Amino acid sequence: MTHTREMLETYPGTVALDAAILAECIEACFDCDQSCSADAVDDLGEEEVNHLRRCITMCLNCSDVCATTGRILSRQVEFEPVIARAALQACVETCRLCAEECEHHAREMNMEHCRVCAESCRRCERACRDTLSDLAA
Amino acid sequence: MTHTREMLETYPGTVALDAAILAECIEACFDCDQSCSADAVDDLGEEEVNHLRRCITMCLNCSDVCATTGRILSRQVEFEPVIARAALQACVETCRLCAEECEHHAREMNMEHCRVCAESCRRCERACRDTLSDLAA
Amino acid sequence: MTHTREMLETYPGTVALDAAILAECIEACFDCDQSCSADAVDDLGEEEVNHLRRCITMCLNCSDVCATTGRILSRQVEFEPVIARAALQACVETCRLCAEECEHHAREMNMEHCRVCAESCRRCERACRDTLSDLAA
Amino acid sequence: MTHTREMLETYPGTVALDAAILAECIEACFDCDQSCSADAVDDLGEEEVNHLRRCITMCLNCSDVCATTGRILSRQVEFEPVIARAALQACVETCRLCAEECEHHAREMNMEHCRVCAESCRRCERACRDTLSDLAA
Repeated sequence: MTHTREMLETYPGTVALDAAILAECIEACFDCDQSCSADAVDDLGEEEVNHLRRCITMCLNCSDVCATTGRILSRQVEFEPVIARAALQACVETCRLCAEECEHHAREMNMEHCRVCAESCRRCERACRDTLSDLAA
Repeated sequence: MTHTREMLETYPGTVALDAAILAECIEACFDCDQSCSADAVDDLGEEEVNHLRRCITMCLNCSDVCATTGRILSRQVEFEPVIARAALQACVETCRLCAEECEHHAREMNMEHCRVCAESCRRCERACRDTLSDLAA
Repeated sequence: MTHTREMLETYPGTVALDAAILAECIEACFDCDQSCSADAVDDLGEEEVNHLRRCITMCLNCSDVCATTGRILSRQVEFEPVIARAALQACVETCRLCAEECEHHAREMNMEHCRVCAESCRRCERACRDTLSDLAA
Repeated sequence: MTHTREMLETYPGTVALDAAILAECIEACFDCDQSCSADAVDDLGEEEVNHLRRCITMCLNCSDVCATTGRILSRQVEFEPVIARAALQACVETCRLCAEECEHHAREMNMEHCRVCAESCRRCERACRDTLSDLAA
């Protein structure tokens, strides 16, 4: 449960984007920050931590990029499309690469935490693409 | 919708705390980061922005403290109670003071975004207190 | 004084980029996070806060983008150029727009804190452009 | 080189604390965020990564706590001592435990990046203690 939608509904101005697309994107960004923060350290707990280096660095980068993108989209007063677009593009790339890495470990090494994290990254990647399309419209 | 609970359920080790209390606290921290990031800038859109200085600074501090606390609690491998406790105590204080300020504006100036933000802060304050109690148990 | 250069010099692997360019960029990112975090709230202390809305939102976004970019560049193991490039491009755009806004207030309203913040943003913009050139080489 | 001192000198109000102590503390917080972000991932590059789990989690927590503390102290308008104190206390504890862990690896495993990171943590711990004393005065 989050207050994201209610915060957008009580915003006193006009939201810069489609409110449903925006709410999903903001929520997905904060959710992906959480999943990646958890997964980076879950990887540390595995015996095969040597094979998880790329996954850990990816998750750390992804958590930071998602946190920043979620905050930029949350700031509706003086919303600047140029900044939102650049952040969303960075978020799409980072979520995509992090998801690929997590999916690999979910498949090959049967790591359930990586499977859940990959779902969270793919949700965020999709939500950022939808928001980019809406920004361009 | 978030993946917080699923990330905890797929954690390969033993979670350091009651899983339901912990999941609620992590989710409340990330939610409060979002609400406060939005509310700080929503305040900027009000004509009476002169009366909202304290509210804006509080919301900015609260968003950062919640983000950090949410991440610390998400990291279960080598979980360190001393650090978790100090972060939770800072989070309780910050959420409490931010909620008081937001509630004031919700009541006196009828600001709906501050009302929702205060709810999010109170939820996070409560969840951090519950987690502190569980840590002490 | 920072430990940025020493951290790069003691990195056990091979740094992905020119070490001097990279150190300056990492340092500029963290410095710009600090300047923008301060300037956003300094603006709140001005009587003309009504005219500073765009400046405040810009500074908040810029502090977050710089924080994330500085961390991504600090992570040398499994450094991923695709992610670094996207973050650097977002950082260039955000620093440029934030600097323009701060320079405007420094010039028109004689705000010294905006003048210093603009310097910090321009330094970071330049350092990110240099790092992007080095990445492309 | 940072703009921290210049940002404090151009602050239009009265700084809540001794300016030299405050500037050193803010700078040490952002520096420690950088050192810990780098060291966490430098550890990943070591063959003995199995022995560095606690060090990595500590560094990740320390980077987040320092980032938040550095920002809270940077925000001088409506500065709230209760929040600053709680953040500083969390920062002292986190820097101390992270430094102890890094010093251990510097000594026992000859890890130079952990030695530099420990210096950065100890500097930040000391600066936060000095700021706490000044707050209490």
